Amino acid sequence: MASVRSGLNVSIEQLKDFCEQILVGLGVSEQDARTTSDVLVQSEAWGIATHGVKLLRGYARRLRDGGLRSNASPSVDKEGLGWAVIDGHSALGQVTTKMAMETAMAKAHRCGTGFVTIRNSCHFGAAGYYAWLAARHGMFGMAMANDVPSVAAPGSKGAILGSNPIAYSIPIGNRDPILLDMSIATVAGGKVMARVNRSEPIPAGWLVDSEGRPTQRGELYPHSASLAPMGGHKGYGIGLLIEILSGVLSGAAFTTGVGSWLHGDRSVPTNHGAAVMAIDLAAMMDPAEFAARMETLQREIHEAPTADGSPPLMLPGEMEWRNFHRAKSQGLELLEDVVASLEETADECGQSSLMSTLN
Amino acid sequence: MASVRSGLNVSIEQLKDFCEQILVGLGVSEQDARTTSDVLVQSEAWGIATHGVKLLRGYARRLRDGGLRSNASPSVDKEGLGWAVIDGHSALGQVTTKMAMETAMAKAHRCGTGFVTIRNSCHFGAAGYYAWLAARHGMFGMAMANDVPSVAAPGSKGAILGSNPIAYSIPIGNRDPILLDMSIATVAGGKVMARVNRSEPIPAGWLVDSEGRPTQRGELYPHSASLAPMGGHKGYGIGLLIEILSGVLSGAAFTTGVGSWLHGDRSVPTNHGAAVMAIDLAAMMDPAEFAARMETLQREIHEAPTADGSPPLMLPGEMEWRNFHRAKSQGLELLEDVVASLEETADECGQSSLMSTLN
Repeated sequence: MASVRSGLNVSIEQLKDFCEQILVGLGVSEQDARTTSDVLVQSEAWGIATHGVKLLRGYARRLRDGGLRSNASPSVDKEGLGWAVIDGHSALGQVTTKMAMETAMAKAHRCGTGFVTIRNSCHFGAAGYYAWLAARHGMFGMAMANDVPSVAAPGSKGAILGSNPIAYSIPIGNRDPILLDMSIATVAGGKVMARVNRSEPIPAGWLVDSEGRPTQRGELYPHSASLAPMGGHKGYGIGLLIEILSGVLSGAAFTTGVGSWLHGDRSVPTNHGAAVMAIDLAAMMDPAEFAARMETLQREIHEAPTADGSPPLMLPGEMEWRNFHRAKSQGLELLEDVVASLEETADECGQSSLMSTLN
Repeated sequence: MASVRSGLNVSIEQLKDFCEQILVGLGVSEQDARTTSDVLVQSEAWGIATHGVKLLRGYARRLRDGGLRSNASPSVDKEGLGWAVIDGHSALGQVTTKMAMETAMAKAHRCGTGFVTIRNSCHFGAAGYYAWLAARHGMFGMAMANDVPSVAAPGSKGAILGSNPIAYSIPIGNRDPILLDMSIATVAGGKVMARVNRSEPIPAGWLVDSEGRPTQRGELYPHSASLAPMGGHKGYGIGLLIEILSGVLSGAAFTTGVGSWLHGDRSVPTNHGAAVMAIDLAAMMDPAEFAARMETLQREIHEAPTADGSPPLMLPGEMEWRNFHRAKSQGLELLEDVVASLEETADECGQSSLMSTLN
């Protein structure tokens, strides 16, 4: 069911307008509503359905119940030449993280590097969006966040760390930039739930039960099972790095202290932490030379021999950019459950339905 | 055979002196010899035998044949407030990377962050050493490097990227810092070769043959098999990040352009790339508060319930620090093949044997 196409085709602009309208109706400023909609719809267009417009319903409920503050604006708490600590004051995570990346880029413009750690944020959607902001300006970008624990450590009985997304983006001249957006789990929890919904088997290596044993019983997740860390101790170690730079260093909550934005009390802020980094590549190497070297690397990868039946190798993000360009020219064909979620959100917020706005 | 203890016990200082003497005999300055020995012996004491003093033989041969230049000194090619590009001029990778991390720390002291990319370097030993340099001064440290291709991408027939080590270190007050040092492969090539040497089976998921199919025939590695990337496309994506920040951005060689420091022509520089980063945590959070929060995180991890038969969870590096403290108090019990390699090196360099220096 989760992957059934609705037959409904919307343009990127129509979808952004719809999301903006919902958020403005909840007291969010036009600018912040635009920012948040842009993150959600960009992710949808990249084909990252788990981090697309489906998230709007949860954000809208938190805005109504007070755990997200519609009138809050993030502020710089402390800063130096190449760094800042930002307090999100429980504004939408998208608003806070975008501002943080813009701050990091301004620092990098001056110093070559910029690092910003963030507290009092919330779920920020797809980490890749913020990394891409930097790549759009010729910079290296990286973004990460902590989250409520869902991922086991090797040997643990339960979840120790959040899915702790991390993303980076690197420009390739005027081509679409490299874009990797991943969690530290072997697979994202959303994929487990999608398989459970479709009554499909769960592959070995995805889940660990509450006794710390490998399990393929998807229905146990998330209450009685946790996600296995990618690469065992390596995924666990990268997850800790993210937890510390995002949560510990910023003054945000960390590990079990982080609230569940989806399942927790919606009137209480989650206090997620996040961190972003920008590096001004143009300071270090002439942009034309860097672009030429990146194009050489890309060509090498594209031309590398692949196993029988395997398509040519891609750089991270190439699939997402194909999805995006198709969505731009042909519109987005939303999935049934995405449409249902949007219509429910419109209904709950007393706004016009998506269907009616498309006429 | 590779894991047989020699019965020979040496102190950390004795082993450093021995390595220094070999390097000084090859025309390396006393200071650079001390730096290189310190990296090698520290790694040996951490128990990272694949990156310990066994590497000395290969470095010594390259120094003799000219691929490593004993009288070269790394220099800053370009720099700004928070960044630098360093040219190693084919000095020992340890000398260049230590200088790079010291440069990054000086930048971070002023700007909060420092990033240095490095060209004309060579094999640098254990990445964790350089990350730890920063943690010793209360900073976050990260180090990475590219290498001759040995790791497959998902679907590729052969190796696409190097093992591309990446390490980070984060201080925990006065305790031993977190220290993660990993390659992007599921397991390091050294572990494959050790199992082949001991005629032990190779687990599924470690290797990919020259047709791009999974294989457990360890004897194919490295000529007709490559290492599987950890977590599939995730390890591949992280490997690319390292390749770009280390190799592409610095002007070093990348992918197939990198020379093999061990198997390649020893008179030709390898032109490895590397990158290091430091973040001055104390600028962002009061060190006492940061230490207290890190101690809380460590306690949480130590106290987390584990599966039946599993020991308590550890932070990355705890095992290595135990090894180090034991080596410091009781000396290092070198493995047979390590002793053999050191004695061969001494012999090739016309220096006193390790045995004779211990009297």
